[in-house]
Amino acid sequence: MNITVWNEFRHEKKNETVKDIYPDGIHEVIAGFLKEEGRTVKTATLDEAEHGLTDDVLNNTDVLLWWGHVAHEEVDDEIVKKVQQRVLDGMGLIVLHSGHFSKIFKTMMGTSCDLKWREAGEKERVWVIDPAHPIAEGIGEYFELEHEEMYGEHFDIPAPDELVFMSWFEGGEVFRSGVTYKRGNGKIFYFRPGHETHPTYYNENVQKVIRNAVKWAAPVKRERPVYGNAQPIETLKGE
Amino acid sequence: MNITVWNEFRHEKKNETVKDIYPDGIHEVIAGFLKEEGRTVKTATLDEAEHGLTDDVLNNTDVLLWWGHVAHEEVDDEIVKKVQQRVLDGMGLIVLHSGHFSKIFKTMMGTSCDLKWREAGEKERVWVIDPAHPIAEGIGEYFELEHEEMYGEHFDIPAPDELVFMSWFEGGEVFRSGVTYKRGNGKIFYFRPGHETHPTYYNENVQKVIRNAVKWAAPVKRERPVYGNAQPIETLKGE
Amino acid sequence: MNITVWNEFRHEKKNETVKDIYPDGIHEVIAGFLKEEGRTVKTATLDEAEHGLTDDVLNNTDVLLWWGHVAHEEVDDEIVKKVQQRVLDGMGLIVLHSGHFSKIFKTMMGTSCDLKWREAGEKERVWVIDPAHPIAEGIGEYFELEHEEMYGEHFDIPAPDELVFMSWFEGGEVFRSGVTYKRGNGKIFYFRPGHETHPTYYNENVQKVIRNAVKWAAPVKRERPVYGNAQPIETLKGE
Amino acid sequence: MNITVWNEFRHEKKNETVKDIYPDGIHEVIAGFLKEEGRTVKTATLDEAEHGLTDDVLNNTDVLLWWGHVAHEEVDDEIVKKVQQRVLDGMGLIVLHSGHFSKIFKTMMGTSCDLKWREAGEKERVWVIDPAHPIAEGIGEYFELEHEEMYGEHFDIPAPDELVFMSWFEGGEVFRSGVTYKRGNGKIFYFRPGHETHPTYYNENVQKVIRNAVKWAAPVKRERPVYGNAQPIETLKGE
Repeated sequence: MNITVWNEFRHEKKNETVKDIYPDGIHEVIAGFLKEEGRTVKTATLDEAEHGLTDDVLNNTDVLLWWGHVAHEEVDDEIVKKVQQRVLDGMGLIVLHSGHFSKIFKTMMGTSCDLKWREAGEKERVWVIDPAHPIAEGIGEYFELEHEEMYGEHFDIPAPDELVFMSWFEGGEVFRSGVTYKRGNGKIFYFRPGHETHPTYYNENVQKVIRNAVKWAAPVKRERPVYGNAQPIETLKGE
Repeated sequence: MNITVWNEFRHEKKNETVKDIYPDGIHEVIAGFLKEEGRTVKTATLDEAEHGLTDDVLNNTDVLLWWGHVAHEEVDDEIVKKVQQRVLDGMGLIVLHSGHFSKIFKTMMGTSCDLKWREAGEKERVWVIDPAHPIAEGIGEYFELEHEEMYGEHFDIPAPDELVFMSWFEGGEVFRSGVTYKRGNGKIFYFRPGHETHPTYYNENVQKVIRNAVKWAAPVKRERPVYGNAQPIETLKGE
Repeated sequence: MNITVWNEFRHEKKNETVKDIYPDGIHEVIAGFLKEEGRTVKTATLDEAEHGLTDDVLNNTDVLLWWGHVAHEEVDDEIVKKVQQRVLDGMGLIVLHSGHFSKIFKTMMGTSCDLKWREAGEKERVWVIDPAHPIAEGIGEYFELEHEEMYGEHFDIPAPDELVFMSWFEGGEVFRSGVTYKRGNGKIFYFRPGHETHPTYYNENVQKVIRNAVKWAAPVKRERPVYGNAQPIETLKGE
Repeated sequence: MNITVWNEFRHEKKNETVKDIYPDGIHEVIAGFLKEEGRTVKTATLDEAEHGLTDDVLNNTDVLLWWGHVAHEEVDDEIVKKVQQRVLDGMGLIVLHSGHFSKIFKTMMGTSCDLKWREAGEKERVWVIDPAHPIAEGIGEYFELEHEEMYGEHFDIPAPDELVFMSWFEGGEVFRSGVTYKRGNGKIFYFRPGHETHPTYYNENVQKVIRNAVKWAAPVKRERPVYGNAQPIETLKGE
């Protein structure tokens, strides 16, 4: 399986706190623990040519992970269209944390993807809601993140195909933290945790969830549907 | 309730067959049977200024119906954005037949909305799949349309929130003909039948379904969710 | 619309705290605020003949509300079967709080309907997850119950057709508090709040939700589907 | 993975047509093509002690397949309860054809599971509705079964979690032919084709679907949720 981890890679260059946690960028940490699984993992970042998402890279990506925050608007609309087309063609897409506001996620969802948020480093408890889901494999009843940004409902997304995780926040909010969608031939998983000022992507449970999600999001092997004008399969009476 | 019926209104001006069936346009026939219900019904068409969908019209529309076919590309992107925003704010949207390829439907769905099609005037049988759904009120187990355009699977839409109707076609295809979605505060119903060269919108069952759908799609009365930065409701331990 | 409020009516007779809050039984309070809406509301309780759910009562009930707790096992299996049949035939069913463990709810769900619980009188905050849902009409972003029993995930129910409310609990849990299902021609709404030692059914928001739910759960008017051996509608080639 | 194929095994003993097609029983044919995949496959039949479903067999089964028709009522209620418990505990369940009316399927669904049917050996065309689903891997846009029993809507099942296949029938009906559910920790797939008088289980596409379904239905490896009385995770204010 070919995996591409896309990261905006801006916070890590400008903010000392973030740099300390992710000196080589969030993408390298994620790519690191995915590589451990024996997969082919590449990275791509905003400031590369075509954001690192050339046709060649996209066409050879089975699952794309997406982390962005301050520079969503700098992502080229043409690249967004290509990523959307690749998802519809079968590529898995895993959208992380502040990626909820990325162009690609909003385009795939058709909604504002807005939410409540608060940077107070409070406690988050992520509960498993769907114990039969492969993305929850190896995860306990819940896991905790001592310090995270809060995201709260209402989260303006379509009702998910599957609700895998739900978060409790110290400040009084709840959030649908792990949700799946199928779009065309592709699968999408949105996973909430991952604020850049906290070492969330080093968390064992977070890593396990992302590993499971990559496996779940792999494309199904079959011919793509044919669209457009179609001859009748059966003889029509009028003919 | 304020209803606006939007129609591209092109076929009816250029094509004699269509003109014979809908001399004043598809929108007038639909507006006509909706008016019977004692509702306030307006119409709007592509060639009016702002396609007839001014801020004033949109802001005062509870449910918008949409029929388009040959001129999807002529619909202004700014108007599409406004309609999307109104749906997210609570306006009901009923997309009819070839409207599956309209900008507004594709924007709300996030998929290609593509399908198989054939203009052979064949028989369609629309089956009720969800007998508990208010949109199926007063409809028998199925109803037939003697001559319709065929739309066949795969229909590239997100898995619907509810599958109300499914069609059987003489030529051997099936189709999810009546599907619902909620997006933000608004409700969407896509209803397949309605090819311009057939008198489908005079059909009693088709009219009943559209009347039911308008009722179902009416906005819910409540304050809209608040998004953005939020103060904690509970006292945080770190404070 | 004919509504029947069913209550086990045991706690109110034996427990002083409960008697103080609901001297005439939980059912009378619920029937009371439903009557205000101008509906025909009856009550039925466990210790009546046939639990008050005679064929005549059931056949003339459009929406049945169910509260039970300590005596689920005393409900006659034959009555449970009749209630299930009536739901499949179109009767709405609203299951309240500890009714999650009633025979009728477990029968309709096919799962254990088990959950975590704690009687500590802690705070519950009920968040609206589906702002487009008629059951959330008139409800703010959330409402609070100062003292309630905790119910926590995992809640062993089928993935709901619609997730309307989600609860945050002071002790650290979350819960799917308002969920809908369609079964056959009928609609089901499960609503979490309502522990007998707290005056929950006097809460304005709780009352509003239950009123909305009754409206939503009303049967759809149409012929019931026909099952069994069926003649072909189209001519078969082999014939 | 340990697979158990359960078959009623009555038609094959009494009916010459069926005996000719499945001399050793439907279960042996299904077990045969599943074995090819290098899995441990056992069979169990109605007339064995405990229907071949002893605690030992059930506890060591990862995925159970179920074919029954004329003798649903002879299946012991205690065994049905054990199978239900095993599904809730994570065992996959694949219900085939006339198994729609089995006690176990009706128990898991909570509905009548009734449908329209006709034994006329007509043509069925099974369309893929969810091209991203692993159960559709390797399957074309549709596949045909020249002669099958007809099953038609309305099919009285809960709205499925996922609708994978939909059938077109020569006689004018449609049917949700491949549907998935999660219940507790387990996954359920219902697959329509497989009338005993037709050689359906020798069909390459039918075999592929069943192989895929077994893979999809395998249990997720994780601790089961804990239910019942729970201590607060956070300190309650009242304490």
